[in-house]
Amino acid sequence: MLKIAGVQFVGQADKEANIRTAARLVRQAAAQGARMVCLPELFSTMYFCVETRREYFAWAEPIPGPTIERMVALARETGIVLIAPIFERAPDGRFFNTAAVIGPDGALIGKYRKSSIPFMDASRSSEPRGNEKFYFSPGDLGFPTFETPFGRIGILICYDRHFTEAARVLGLGGAEIVFVPTATTFMTRYLWDLELRAHAVVNIYYVCGVNKVGVDVGGSARNHFGNSMVINPRGEILAQASDAKEDIAIAEVDLTVIPELRTLWGYYRDRRPDQYGPLLDAVAPPASRAAA
Amino acid sequence: MLKIAGVQFVGQADKEANIRTAARLVRQAAAQGARMVCLPELFSTMYFCVETRREYFAWAEPIPGPTIERMVALARETGIVLIAPIFERAPDGRFFNTAAVIGPDGALIGKYRKSSIPFMDASRSSEPRGNEKFYFSPGDLGFPTFETPFGRIGILICYDRHFTEAARVLGLGGAEIVFVPTATTFMTRYLWDLELRAHAVVNIYYVCGVNKVGVDVGGSARNHFGNSMVINPRGEILAQASDAKEDIAIAEVDLTVIPELRTLWGYYRDRRPDQYGPLLDAVAPPASRAAA
Repeated sequence: MLKIAGVQFVGQADKEANIRTAARLVRQAAAQGARMVCLPELFSTMYFCVETRREYFAWAEPIPGPTIERMVALARETGIVLIAPIFERAPDGRFFNTAAVIGPDGALIGKYRKSSIPFMDASRSSEPRGNEKFYFSPGDLGFPTFETPFGRIGILICYDRHFTEAARVLGLGGAEIVFVPTATTFMTRYLWDLELRAHAVVNIYYVCGVNKVGVDVGGSARNHFGNSMVINPRGEILAQASDAKEDIAIAEVDLTVIPELRTLWGYYRDRRPDQYGPLLDAVAPPASRAAA
Repeated sequence: MLKIAGVQFVGQADKEANIRTAARLVRQAAAQGARMVCLPELFSTMYFCVETRREYFAWAEPIPGPTIERMVALARETGIVLIAPIFERAPDGRFFNTAAVIGPDGALIGKYRKSSIPFMDASRSSEPRGNEKFYFSPGDLGFPTFETPFGRIGILICYDRHFTEAARVLGLGGAEIVFVPTATTFMTRYLWDLELRAHAVVNIYYVCGVNKVGVDVGGSARNHFGNSMVINPRGEILAQASDAKEDIAIAEVDLTVIPELRTLWGYYRDRRPDQYGPLLDAVAPPASRAAA
């Protein structure tokens, strides 16, 4: 059996403080037996995307780069697979919301760049909302899966989780566990379990959702709800972290149930790729009659 | 405001009995104000697919054909949009699990043929399971939406609901309400709300799931759980029918919330069709390491 964990903590404007907190919690999860650990979205910064300030671009780093090098050392020290999401500055001058995947030997196995980038109208809510299109280009790496010594994993970052196409591509790519580093607020609380559980059951893999928690120190009033969780392919929540404070969601997963459940249900046998063409059409949906 | 309904009843080996029961419940739903009514999967027969008996092919009918002509008269009489799923015999000798869509003027607006056809291994469960591949060809009509006088609708039939690609194509096609005629058993009870609610929230439309209920008279021991329900685009269950007996799930829906929610969330803006290519590849997923 394999133990996996998501660690959540309150973000700070001070990058060094975030890195130290993350390292402490990763060591704690590893001491509890976790062999794969995922950090929240943009773990090394607070969730800065509410504001549109050019100086925040200075927080971006290359991958590999100083923060990821420290995560490489941490993964090697603890012998785990570490999923470390940061603000990435690409060599070509673009910026991405990216998760690095690091092996227990310290190898950089790969990275995933957030594919769908939100921009929510703050006037619709009293809650501070993310203007991520100011910072991030939409990811250009597709939806890769990563072979690790402990299992094949995929990643969806925050808003990506609302896109069932992305979740399915990961299943088709053989993902056994999908990690979902996130920075989301109480406005979406009612969707959190529902969407993550649905991805798990229809694609037949484990899901580990990892959310930021609380209000960033030195940031916006945005309040993240935590509730990091591990879900099995039957949609059952195996572990769930606090909705208010630093915490670890850790659970044992049994990857051998996946092929069994996949042949039981037949979903991968009975898909109809010949009929899914409209999913690739770059057209807007027709206006609904209600809008007309 | 628009009222929609799903009607559920216990199936019988006697086709005429099913048609009479359906007509009685449709009139009852219309009398309660429903302007769209959906019948369960294969409404005019019991769920015969547990057994593989060639004589059951005699129950199939063309569309239009005798049963659908009676549904046409019923839709015209009650002034409703009627979704009537039957066992279809196509002119070319193939058979389909098909739903006819009939307008309030009695026009046959169109039909949808179930796209994904299940074949569940009965040895895995004490429950009688469906061997539908013996009877039905996989549908060849894609995932159409149908413009009706009361709104644009789409249809998923039973097992189709496990395929998020299909649900998304309906959203892209402008579906405001997706009807899901079904004949499913307590083995899948834990998936029913979860998957239907998830379709509603990620695609932003209403969902009306309509399940058979009870044990068919003259059929297998298969026990259908009913629980027909209407769900709004926030994933809230507006109406839910009995899990044990004939019943109607009826609720008011407000189609004007759909464009509002779609611009709020931005999902249709931020999809990445350029990255979804693998959804159309006709390849098997790689074997998971657990199976290796």
